[in-house]
Amino acid sequence: MTTRIVELRRGILKKNDELAAGLRGRYAAAGVLVLNLVSSPGTGKTAFLELTLKELRARGARVAALVGDLETDNDARRLAASGAPVRQINTHGICHLDAEMIAKHLSDWEGVELGELDYLFIENVGNLVCPSSYDLGEAIRVVLLSVTEGEDKPLKYPTLFNSADAAVITKIDIAAPCGFDRDEALRNINEIRPGIRIFETSAKTGAGLEEWLGYLGEERARRDS
Amino acid sequence: MTTRIVELRRGILKKNDELAAGLRGRYAAAGVLVLNLVSSPGTGKTAFLELTLKELRARGARVAALVGDLETDNDARRLAASGAPVRQINTHGICHLDAEMIAKHLSDWEGVELGELDYLFIENVGNLVCPSSYDLGEAIRVVLLSVTEGEDKPLKYPTLFNSADAAVITKIDIAAPCGFDRDEALRNINEIRPGIRIFETSAKTGAGLEEWLGYLGEERARRDS
Repeated sequence: MTTRIVELRRGILKKNDELAAGLRGRYAAAGVLVLNLVSSPGTGKTAFLELTLKELRARGARVAALVGDLETDNDARRLAASGAPVRQINTHGICHLDAEMIAKHLSDWEGVELGELDYLFIENVGNLVCPSSYDLGEAIRVVLLSVTEGEDKPLKYPTLFNSADAAVITKIDIAAPCGFDRDEALRNINEIRPGIRIFETSAKTGAGLEEWLGYLGEERARRDS
Repeated sequence: MTTRIVELRRGILKKNDELAAGLRGRYAAAGVLVLNLVSSPGTGKTAFLELTLKELRARGARVAALVGDLETDNDARRLAASGAPVRQINTHGICHLDAEMIAKHLSDWEGVELGELDYLFIENVGNLVCPSSYDLGEAIRVVLLSVTEGEDKPLKYPTLFNSADAAVITKIDIAAPCGFDRDEALRNINEIRPGIRIFETSAKTGAGLEEWLGYLGEERARRDS
């Protein structure tokens, strides 16, 4: 039974990888930088993304977001307050987004054309395990970790941290009451993914946002050239 | 492909349910109250359990814990500081514990006999999705939610909250800096699981612990009678 599941899972992942490769080509052709945001439930992905969308728009960038949740469209409604086009993907029991869901929601997204976007953000389902296996064709995978979660998360969930291109530490405004050990967190992230870019941020105070937006601009410029 | 996966998954869950029913019978025969603790990564399951084990031992109860993580034995080492027997289960990429893992680790746990325990705590892998499908034979499933995670978690992860017997809100010492909306959180929990027992706790200050320990005692007494 286990062997058959493993074989079937391998088949599903292979099909997902093929679909994701197709998406990656489409994103590149359209000149849109696509980011896949992954974290635990409750890390603050939505608050961080809300601020990112708002600030990018204020600087004239064309942005949109897809947001995955098992149920509810709470996050899409929160993100839509930024004024950017936002679409909710409800997975109804599936604990991750996959390339097929993304392709389907892109294909009939009224008023949104990939070629007219600078950035597309995908907020994954809150989960530190399964999303790491599903490539969505993104250019940049961002893992988020809040100061409330415990500094050893990278060691406990190495696959996800190892597959990430950037790490965002959230909620640094409450680092002190949480007893957050910054040095240990940075050391653990670097142990699993040496040299990864790390941003220390707060959606409440705006800390770290300039550095993050600068990184996004650099990544776009680097890929356009 | 999807149909075959669903069928295989159903088969695996059926096998898990049968194993769990066997475990449930063994727990009852041994007179041990078994609790399965489930939450996001970073909710503070380990800190809460560490304090629970220490306080129960101080009152003369016989306790032990099994703790699941993908990798590392950090949590087992933390919990062992309580003086209770603790065993780490590393799932190596599996995002939940299942009944077979529990049965295996109980069968060769040196020095621990179910019949000589009052309480056995199982700390699940940090994940709000998959553990809800895997019965471990527990008497009480406890879902934990921290004040840092967002009050709408019960609505976004209804399956897990709906299958829980008790809910523990953790880290209430930092409710204020987190802007935690207590009324909304309680309302959302009750919407998904009306009438569930809810404990508001802090492992840092000990808040809510007496009520929680009282509940554990009542549940043991109720099942013994």
